[in-house]
Amino acid sequence: MRLNKEAFRELKLLLGDRLLTRKEDLFPYSFDASSLFFFPDGVALPERKEEVIEILRIADYYEFPIVARGCGTATTGSPLPITGGLVVSFTRMNKILELNLEERTVRVEPGVINGELKAYLKRYGLFYPPDPASYAFSSIGGNVATGAGGPRGLKYGTTKDYVLSLEVALPGGKVLKTGPQTLKGVVPYNLTPLFVGSEGTLGLFLEILLKVIPLPEKRRLYLIFFPEEVLAFHFLTEILKMGLTPASAEFVDKTTLQALREKLEPYKDKAPFSSLLFIELDGSFEEVLKDSQRFERILKERKYPFILADEEEEIERLWEIRRAISPLLKKLGAKKIADDITLPRRALSEFLKFLRDLEKASGISISAFGHAGDGNLHVNLLFEEEKKDIVRSLREQIFKKVLELCGTISGEHGVGYLKRPFVIWELDPLQIEIMKKLKSLFDPKGILNPQIKLPD
Amino acid sequence: MRLNKEAFRELKLLLGDRLLTRKEDLFPYSFDASSLFFFPDGVALPERKEEVIEILRIADYYEFPIVARGCGTATTGSPLPITGGLVVSFTRMNKILELNLEERTVRVEPGVINGELKAYLKRYGLFYPPDPASYAFSSIGGNVATGAGGPRGLKYGTTKDYVLSLEVALPGGKVLKTGPQTLKGVVPYNLTPLFVGSEGTLGLFLEILLKVIPLPEKRRLYLIFFPEEVLAFHFLTEILKMGLTPASAEFVDKTTLQALREKLEPYKDKAPFSSLLFIELDGSFEEVLKDSQRFERILKERKYPFILADEEEEIERLWEIRRAISPLLKKLGAKKIADDITLPRRALSEFLKFLRDLEKASGISISAFGHAGDGNLHVNLLFEEEKKDIVRSLREQIFKKVLELCGTISGEHGVGYLKRPFVIWELDPLQIEIMKKLKSLFDPKGILNPQIKLPD
Repeated sequence: MRLNKEAFRELKLLLGDRLLTRKEDLFPYSFDASSLFFFPDGVALPERKEEVIEILRIADYYEFPIVARGCGTATTGSPLPITGGLVVSFTRMNKILELNLEERTVRVEPGVINGELKAYLKRYGLFYPPDPASYAFSSIGGNVATGAGGPRGLKYGTTKDYVLSLEVALPGGKVLKTGPQTLKGVVPYNLTPLFVGSEGTLGLFLEILLKVIPLPEKRRLYLIFFPEEVLAFHFLTEILKMGLTPASAEFVDKTTLQALREKLEPYKDKAPFSSLLFIELDGSFEEVLKDSQRFERILKERKYPFILADEEEEIERLWEIRRAISPLLKKLGAKKIADDITLPRRALSEFLKFLRDLEKASGISISAFGHAGDGNLHVNLLFEEEKKDIVRSLREQIFKKVLELCGTISGEHGVGYLKRPFVIWELDPLQIEIMKKLKSLFDPKGILNPQIKLPD
Repeated sequence: MRLNKEAFRELKLLLGDRLLTRKEDLFPYSFDASSLFFFPDGVALPERKEEVIEILRIADYYEFPIVARGCGTATTGSPLPITGGLVVSFTRMNKILELNLEERTVRVEPGVINGELKAYLKRYGLFYPPDPASYAFSSIGGNVATGAGGPRGLKYGTTKDYVLSLEVALPGGKVLKTGPQTLKGVVPYNLTPLFVGSEGTLGLFLEILLKVIPLPEKRRLYLIFFPEEVLAFHFLTEILKMGLTPASAEFVDKTTLQALREKLEPYKDKAPFSSLLFIELDGSFEEVLKDSQRFERILKERKYPFILADEEEEIERLWEIRRAISPLLKKLGAKKIADDITLPRRALSEFLKFLRDLEKASGISISAFGHAGDGNLHVNLLFEEEKKDIVRSLREQIFKKVLELCGTISGEHGVGYLKRPFVIWELDPLQIEIMKKLKSLFDPKGILNPQIKLPD
């Protein structure tokens, strides 16, 4: 299943300069934010949906793999041509097609950058909440393909909660419209969510209709310092049970704190602390004021030191600490393996204790930070090259523990190529059988993203 | 495909008294809230999921139809045995299995009544928003099967936005768990929403995991009187564009007002009015106060008369007017055909004008009321027996107009048996082909709800 001369000729006729075939041009499309590397046979840069459809017709005829790619920020290898073939890059299909103020919807091409959409909507007082860490340079199409989340998931949900309908090109070039164009509708089976998080294995997105909401008027960010690691989780449970729903609740564990030492220098007076929570409240001025009062009352009762940022600029500065984590983690080990497991919130404390024991026993640093609000932690193993073998076993132990605690091995990054061997650990044979049947239903020749997401 | 003696014998062994076969016992299961009537061969009243699974094994072996039934409040015939067979009633599987306060989730059996779940959650300060008009006597399982909506859809979405995962029994008795048990998760394809709104055609629900949210602290209800019908829609657009999101925005048109005359007697001083909007605001005290101020400012600028209810009891009394509509409509004609079309909000005015022209030309009363907030109107044709033929043509004209305006012929009631002939008007051949393939994937012998939802 590679591209032959005839296939190349047809693609060239269709795309001209926008078919890349020279090695140096292909290189940027051979990796993503994982450490994987797979070289494509060619890269297509379509500008119109008709071209995508035609590419799928050609691929169907010659039977070569098609791998959809947004901006390549995936951490799992999902936009990589594992078995070669043609990468279809959506970077040039990046138009915001229609903002409908009456419906509060926006229709976009898949290549629109999440952050650019956010900036555009802001001018109209509107808001598209999903905010993966990569939002400044990841595309909506890629976000939909992975079902991307982000810190705001706690209050606002993830990408799946904002996709109203999709126009999807299927292998062979047929175009499927999923769902009605209205806010409600129950005539067809609801296929839209099947494609959200499908990681390019079922079809290519041509247009995406998103729900948007009014922009919250006010934000306030708290940074809270806990003397013991798990107290952060207990505190989070307590405020949720009170009925408070922060926009974000981001956790930073003890190991990660070491990497953040310099960034946290200004706060070293906050007594010794072992973990942090970033809690952002948002809403109307009145709502934030009221929620803050309730929130601070408990903070003071519990005597946890905290700081707060009230102005947009201060808030962003404080969030910088959280955003600095991923790059700074390199300090703790030459190599890093990052996972994004998700647990029921009540299992977080037990899981963290398990990680500490594992850290102690193995001598390998384990950092666990992220979206505690919805139970989603980014677990990073930080190690030197020579410890590679131990690390594989650690990772397996971690996944086993996650599943034992009724969690999932991926909350928002997806399976891609990296986690593919572990899918059979999480899903039972019937779930896998049905996934495979669905895959065959939409892609009978198996040309879309081979060896991604689905187990063999 | 009817039940034979052996099938009955096996079912009897399994269910004992809870297999109904006497004509008088079957009668209550032969109709729903539509005017359709189909007699089952038998009715099963399982109490445990193992029994449902076993019923499906038996049905698979003898190949007879299985029709799932909640409380029979469907308006489309979806819980009716069109081709005979066994009705599986879930009324005895009505336990609330687990409330998880940390996760804000509740796991229920399908027979739990929506209103009872609401009352149960209220004790914990929690809230399950979907509120079909039937909520006091419809089941969660039925709500999930139809993808039920209700007035609160505008702010809170519909059933699909609250179902986190399902345990589904498939034909033959296999049990499929859809989605992770965590708040986020992207390992499997997201199958949960495929079953929401599937109207019993893909599988039977054994357990349902729902997301719940904190109960809003305060409600306030406005009833607004408009001198011209479409001004209600213009006003609604205006407040949505301001960034206000009411919990509900319910519209009552001119024709419906005739049926409500007595109920509205206390408000006849409100100058002549042609339509109404019920607008409910909810949230924290502060939020509702603030939103009310902004809201009343516009109301006063536009000089629309209004009344408001601020206390729980008053609010419910005012909502009684809205709830009285369906029963009172009978006054306008001996027969009633009810549809629940949904349009993009900006098309509502044009659609209403179209209905008025149709009413004038045909002499048949057309009432259009309901969830204007999300573009969902209940269109009722009210007529005397002898006008039956004209009515069929009117209904077809209405559906055509709806589709021309990019709407859908069902926003929340589903297709069932009644709207089945019109599915091909709304969906294109590829959409239908994929629906049929999905149906075959889950139910290869076609024993689940034959002749419901899918076109021939």
